[in-house]
Amino acid sequence: MSRVAVLGAGMMGAAFCVPMVDRGHDVHLVGTHLDDEIIDRLRRDGVHPDMDIALPDSLHLYPHDELSEAMDGADVLVLGVSSAGVRWAGEATAPHVHADLPVISITKGLEWDGDRFHLLPDVLAAQWPDEVAAVVDPGAVVGPCIAGELAHRVPTAVVFASRDGAMVSGLADAFTTEYYHVRVSTDLAAMEAAAAMKNAYAMAVALAFGLDEVRGGEGGSVAMHNHAAAVFAQSVTEMGRIVELLGGTGGPSTVLPVVGDLYVTCQGGRTSRLGRRLGRGETVAEAVAAMPGVTLEALDVLRVWAEALPTLTAAGRLDEQELPLLRHLCRMVTDDASAELPFRSFFDELGARS
Amino acid sequence: MSRVAVLGAGMMGAAFCVPMVDRGHDVHLVGTHLDDEIIDRLRRDGVHPDMDIALPDSLHLYPHDELSEAMDGADVLVLGVSSAGVRWAGEATAPHVHADLPVISITKGLEWDGDRFHLLPDVLAAQWPDEVAAVVDPGAVVGPCIAGELAHRVPTAVVFASRDGAMVSGLADAFTTEYYHVRVSTDLAAMEAAAAMKNAYAMAVALAFGLDEVRGGEGGSVAMHNHAAAVFAQSVTEMGRIVELLGGTGGPSTVLPVVGDLYVTCQGGRTSRLGRRLGRGETVAEAVAAMPGVTLEALDVLRVWAEALPTLTAAGRLDEQELPLLRHLCRMVTDDASAELPFRSFFDELGARS
Repeated sequence: MSRVAVLGAGMMGAAFCVPMVDRGHDVHLVGTHLDDEIIDRLRRDGVHPDMDIALPDSLHLYPHDELSEAMDGADVLVLGVSSAGVRWAGEATAPHVHADLPVISITKGLEWDGDRFHLLPDVLAAQWPDEVAAVVDPGAVVGPCIAGELAHRVPTAVVFASRDGAMVSGLADAFTTEYYHVRVSTDLAAMEAAAAMKNAYAMAVALAFGLDEVRGGEGGSVAMHNHAAAVFAQSVTEMGRIVELLGGTGGPSTVLPVVGDLYVTCQGGRTSRLGRRLGRGETVAEAVAAMPGVTLEALDVLRVWAEALPTLTAAGRLDEQELPLLRHLCRMVTDDASAELPFRSFFDELGARS
Repeated sequence: MSRVAVLGAGMMGAAFCVPMVDRGHDVHLVGTHLDDEIIDRLRRDGVHPDMDIALPDSLHLYPHDELSEAMDGADVLVLGVSSAGVRWAGEATAPHVHADLPVISITKGLEWDGDRFHLLPDVLAAQWPDEVAAVVDPGAVVGPCIAGELAHRVPTAVVFASRDGAMVSGLADAFTTEYYHVRVSTDLAAMEAAAAMKNAYAMAVALAFGLDEVRGGEGGSVAMHNHAAAVFAQSVTEMGRIVELLGGTGGPSTVLPVVGDLYVTCQGGRTSRLGRRLGRGETVAEAVAAMPGVTLEALDVLRVWAEALPTLTAAGRLDEQELPLLRHLCRMVTDDASAELPFRSFFDELGARS
């Protein structure tokens, strides 16, 4: 049995505690300063308010100002903060991390510094003292995982990825359950690329549902699934290129985080609702206004790429013909481009009449 | 303008006429002996009864006994028969095929002769006189394409595949429209493998919906999407292996037929309904009895593999650990194995804690 500290009591951080408790670990869940109501409710009746699910009784709960107590003697640190909170989480955990503490994060996203991308585990480690950052290579949990389903112990397959393969192998052995199937990978860049991009591309897949509404369709089995499927396949193709661009290896190990996670993100939820609205002809501003208080990761990552694409292309690191779908999605965010996608430029990889 | 003869007036054969007519071709649609009612109805009011969609007026219609007239002077032959009708179609067209007639088929399936698989375009060509079969290499149309959507001119992306790249390039140029996006590939084995397998794997993805019902779930965004996504990803992984086994090259060009077509097949329809029933705990016999008159390609292809797997494994062409999902699906068909899938054996390609 290990003592595990989990920082971030949002849906994914909290859900991740369930298999850890089931494996007999001593799990200490700490809210961030945004999670006070969640921790209060969990202390009151054990129910996570955003998931409406009772979490295991044996979970130890802490508000954000008790981070030190929660981390006291921890054998493993799990970070479940939002992408906006990664720097804060790095600073907050800096006094507690050390060479023998495995760290794994469920935060998704990419940072662009004007010249190159940074993976969030690296942004996190950059906040730590140099001597710790030099020896602790934080990992990432990626793959198709709806938090509410994991909390319900629905069969779920994910990948623990880190450049430190031994670390994630150990964590995988410690956290795998009958319903939580953990594989490992050292291809961190590929896994993080997939995790960061899936929302943008799931938004693209969902455009078809809005376009179908506009043309008077009623959904069902004859709608615009051909459109959605072509966009889904183009998305997978482009994610392969992005994996490469970020220095990942790709290959079979990326199927679960690329294809599986894109599939699950297309099964309803806020990203699909956003795409449907844009497909109907709403502008990004109109769609955002109609979804108050909803985190829209798709727009965050597209804004990053809207900045990065011109630089990458000018530097010759990306050809102008590459990533035509992503380029169009960025124009939807920056210039209100329509939802009519450039299908003719898709699938150029197919060998152009060879 | 070319004269195109289409043999088979089922949904897909008929829908395929729409882009061809829109490109200005002179299209002659011939029913098989099973399509008399369809041709009668089309002659009466232009509506295809199985799709409830009016087809273009300029379509020329023929019952099965007028095949010779329909093929007179044809520049292109399109075959839209069912997999069971491939031999018949080969025999029926044998007197009409010649070296200068491009042939492309939309039939999906695989044949197993006790020792190896045969692609349906090859089964077709085997029915022709040797001197014709030696020079005409029939192509295949693959990729995500719901017939009723194509007939409605919904944006659709497909691949025309043939070992004769020049032939399919010519056909792609001739049949591409504003809404029908045709790419080409010479990797026929990969494309046919994907087209044949997608129903079996889409059935597997849909098991989650039935399993969710059994556990009292009501669908929605928290159901068993994690399960479905893991199975979707494992399906794509296994299809990659099957492409290889059938002598295909694979790679980026297979994303549309593998991932795109699997996605579209998972969006409802008979294969999903079958999977849902099996997930609920019905046996194959019970599910089939509850779906009278419905063609269930998933079961056809699984029966073929149930025969092929032991031979391939005994011969060392396939390792016992490979294709664990497909092996389980075959046991569901042959031995009423349960819908509890062997998740632990999935994703072995992920590098096993390396």
